[in-house]
Amino acid sequence: MPKKDIALKIIPLGGLAGIGKNMTAFEYGDDMVLVDAGLMFPDEAQPGIDLILPDYTYVLENEDKLRGIIITHGHEDHTGALPYLLADLTRKVPIYSSKLTLGIIQGKFDEHNIKNPKTREVSDGTTITLGAFTITFFSMTHSIPAAFGIFMSTPAGTVMHTGDFKFDQTPIDGRRPNFHAINKFGASGVDLLLSDSTNATRPGFTPSEAAVGRDLRHVIKNAKGRVFVAAFSSHIHRLQQICDASVAVGRKVVVTGRSMLTNTRVARELGYLRIAEDDIIDAYDVDRIPDEKVVVLCTGSQGEPLSALARMATGEHKSLSIHESDTVIISSTPIPGNEKSVQSIINELSKIGCEIYDKSKGTVHVSGHASQEELKLMLAMARPRYFMPVHGEAQHLRAHAELGVQMGVPASHVFVLDNGDSLEMVKHKVRRGRAVESGVVYVDGGTVTEANPVVLRDRQKLGADGVITASVVVSKRGGSVSAVEVLGRGLSSSAEGLLASEGREAVRSQVTKLMAGDGASVDALRRGVRNSLSNLLWNKTHTRPMIIPVVMEV
Amino acid sequence: MPKKDIALKIIPLGGLAGIGKNMTAFEYGDDMVLVDAGLMFPDEAQPGIDLILPDYTYVLENEDKLRGIIITHGHEDHTGALPYLLADLTRKVPIYSSKLTLGIIQGKFDEHNIKNPKTREVSDGTTITLGAFTITFFSMTHSIPAAFGIFMSTPAGTVMHTGDFKFDQTPIDGRRPNFHAINKFGASGVDLLLSDSTNATRPGFTPSEAAVGRDLRHVIKNAKGRVFVAAFSSHIHRLQQICDASVAVGRKVVVTGRSMLTNTRVARELGYLRIAEDDIIDAYDVDRIPDEKVVVLCTGSQGEPLSALARMATGEHKSLSIHESDTVIISSTPIPGNEKSVQSIINELSKIGCEIYDKSKGTVHVSGHASQEELKLMLAMARPRYFMPVHGEAQHLRAHAELGVQMGVPASHVFVLDNGDSLEMVKHKVRRGRAVESGVVYVDGGTVTEANPVVLRDRQKLGADGVITASVVVSKRGGSVSAVEVLGRGLSSSAEGLLASEGREAVRSQVTKLMAGDGASVDALRRGVRNSLSNLLWNKTHTRPMIIPVVMEV
Repeated sequence: MPKKDIALKIIPLGGLAGIGKNMTAFEYGDDMVLVDAGLMFPDEAQPGIDLILPDYTYVLENEDKLRGIIITHGHEDHTGALPYLLADLTRKVPIYSSKLTLGIIQGKFDEHNIKNPKTREVSDGTTITLGAFTITFFSMTHSIPAAFGIFMSTPAGTVMHTGDFKFDQTPIDGRRPNFHAINKFGASGVDLLLSDSTNATRPGFTPSEAAVGRDLRHVIKNAKGRVFVAAFSSHIHRLQQICDASVAVGRKVVVTGRSMLTNTRVARELGYLRIAEDDIIDAYDVDRIPDEKVVVLCTGSQGEPLSALARMATGEHKSLSIHESDTVIISSTPIPGNEKSVQSIINELSKIGCEIYDKSKGTVHVSGHASQEELKLMLAMARPRYFMPVHGEAQHLRAHAELGVQMGVPASHVFVLDNGDSLEMVKHKVRRGRAVESGVVYVDGGTVTEANPVVLRDRQKLGADGVITASVVVSKRGGSVSAVEVLGRGLSSSAEGLLASEGREAVRSQVTKLMAGDGASVDALRRGVRNSLSNLLWNKTHTRPMIIPVVMEV
Repeated sequence: MPKKDIALKIIPLGGLAGIGKNMTAFEYGDDMVLVDAGLMFPDEAQPGIDLILPDYTYVLENEDKLRGIIITHGHEDHTGALPYLLADLTRKVPIYSSKLTLGIIQGKFDEHNIKNPKTREVSDGTTITLGAFTITFFSMTHSIPAAFGIFMSTPAGTVMHTGDFKFDQTPIDGRRPNFHAINKFGASGVDLLLSDSTNATRPGFTPSEAAVGRDLRHVIKNAKGRVFVAAFSSHIHRLQQICDASVAVGRKVVVTGRSMLTNTRVARELGYLRIAEDDIIDAYDVDRIPDEKVVVLCTGSQGEPLSALARMATGEHKSLSIHESDTVIISSTPIPGNEKSVQSIINELSKIGCEIYDKSKGTVHVSGHASQEELKLMLAMARPRYFMPVHGEAQHLRAHAELGVQMGVPASHVFVLDNGDSLEMVKHKVRRGRAVESGVVYVDGGTVTEANPVVLRDRQKLGADGVITASVVVSKRGGSVSAVEVLGRGLSSSAEGLLASEGREAVRSQVTKLMAGDGASVDALRRGVRNSLSNLLWNKTHTRPMIIPVVMEV
């Protein structure tokens, strides 16, 4: 096969809800580049699971090809799988990102005891060569500073990957999206565009982060007592605006919550968050300062039950509490699934009687993702021949695909992928590639495991219906039942009562009956134990706990 | 105590999230009246629980006083506890409500096998006397037809209870809120107003249900294939508008989903839903009719996984499926906590590629609860001397309390209650009453039980971490271990592996060691078994499954 016919493969890995969000592999011949290595958080469909990682088996199988890992920005869903991946790789692979992102990642490496990672700082305009790939980074704006899009050139064609972005024309740090670069790449020819679909169903233009400043300043200026602001700890620009507003009115800033302490420290060390040492005070010193001179910057904007805000709202924080005269600003929007937790904190705060500002009361939050007009602008500037919406659930990918068609990409050139799908590009033409082992793996009890539906189903059943353990000792010689013990946990009170009064006897009589026959096997006895209890419980209490029968011969 | 000093007690019962929502007792001397008898649905904080009922112990303890039960409208959170309550009462107590509400309730009675309930139909303006209570019903508008507010007069003073309401000036059935009655009672003197707080944080005026009709008609008229509309089955006016729009463009209506079938049948029988027999077809006959002549009315607007819409979206419905050329209208807004389920159905539909209309794409839903301007209007017309916001979480009660103060009720006359609180009125003056046993009880496996935190905690632990049962047989005489069996369910793979390789031996050696001492008790052996396994698992896998040790002597 002549070299020019080698295909560039574009392989999204992971993506429980959002293709091309957590990790994407780009492979050309003997070279592979990974873009992002993020994780997901479990919900009620994954009981007991700690974290969810992309299944990067494909990367490990092709480890010898891996030339580098590019991290577009510092959010967990783009960085969180890195420590696991690095631990699984047998050699050091260079990691390219901005100073801030690398600073945030370093914290994770320290936690996971990963020594001397091969990190490489890049900035707007940096071009690197990784095997057959020439990659140029360009500045983008997002809800964390120092985010990048990338433009990648290979013998098979070119790809632009936006990373997570919005077009913020007035970013807090003055680092605008590099429209010039995007247009230049667009003019030079973008064969395939991968673009962020998170807000593809939202009309209009996402407001600038600067829009939040006015209301934050207004609320902080007019508050009577202490002001508590809950925000994402990685949203350094938001934190900067809160700090600026506080200092402007002569308030000191107290930082609380583990990730808030870490991220503000890293961001200040690296020069991304600017506030004088004098203007920050320790939570333990806060009582020395009048209430009207204090702003508390805290975690908990998603209602996390163990966060600083939740603990302060319920009086369980070790050094701070919230009073009626105070003001609380919840400077974020609930991520889907967190609505009830956030509501529950707002209820606690309502009982305290403090002032509460959330998104419904003013512009105390704006999204970090591009809305429809920005997405169209991106399509207009990049002018891609082929388009693959990424980073969104099925609804958002489809909405973004429709925008692509509106912007003139032929419908047959728009690819909405599902888990396991891939694309390939040959001579600047893109088509669907072969299926790749994809999906996700779980971090469960400290170890990474394949998703095991039996375990999850068992946990759901245990959690809903409880468990009964029925232990029976039978005598090998006498053919008789020597002992029976039946115990339940998590049962409804009717099942618990029934078990106490009739459980043991039901098991004993069933086993005795079975043994009176032609010497029933242990398996048959076990089935008998399970059936006797499950019939008893279903008939009399209409419950179906999990039953674990144990039959032991002595 | 002279009769005029007898207190009218106002006792909210239940109210997991929404004081005075599910059931409120009004007691004056030897007479008691109950307003509503509803239930709540459990969430992840109540694993395995079927339903949540108000704890109506107080009602049962005072059963001889109970003169009647008033049901304001037919929603589950106001009617669902009735069958349980009636079963617990030793005599028949009359139930007052509208024809529709009684019709809906009758279905529940049939399910629960409750014979000959003493139901009494009332209508706008009906006045009844129940002991010392004179009660007048007045029409209100809500997201179910035939809702009432009530005005209650007692020797201690008067109370107005709005029920759930919005001020719909153009209701689909022409039955407007009875402003005249509200103003008349206001003029005659309302000592205490209890008013619906659900939307107390929402500015403005909730749009009329009629506002939904235009967009529904537009979408149904312009759809190419079948149209599927998911709505609350009790929202008869919504169903009426969907039926009208369908018939107007020559489409037949197919009804699917259990509660949708029941409610449309009841509503048609009672004259609340009007559609000709000819215009309704059975789901099994739908294939005889061209797609563009069909509208499917279905359950599942909240993303319920077993609903008709969910089954049709995933291809699991027995007679209907959704195709790319079809249109789906989700004619509701997710109730907090259901956002992810609804999103998940929208994702399935996006994969099918059909047209999807939800609230973001047009007015296909409006709330059934009054917004701030309506709540102020209610306060302006009722002119209460005292005010108790009801039916809302802490945030909404507080917001409504603030509206009350804005409208001129003195802050000291506004009462925001918590679970267990009560009010009492003596000679037209309202103050806080004594605490009442309140709270909720659970329906768990068919029986009603006290909330048992141990059971719920056990279920949460079982569901998150799994369970290990460790059975040990020891010989009484020999002082030796005769048999050990260790089994796990729902464990992480590392814990499962460890258990298989080392579990049995860890238990055996620990028990042997303990028995080598001065004949350890069964309790001590049990503790030993638990500790040996929990240490082993924690040290090597950092997991903490529930451990059930069983020690049997033979």
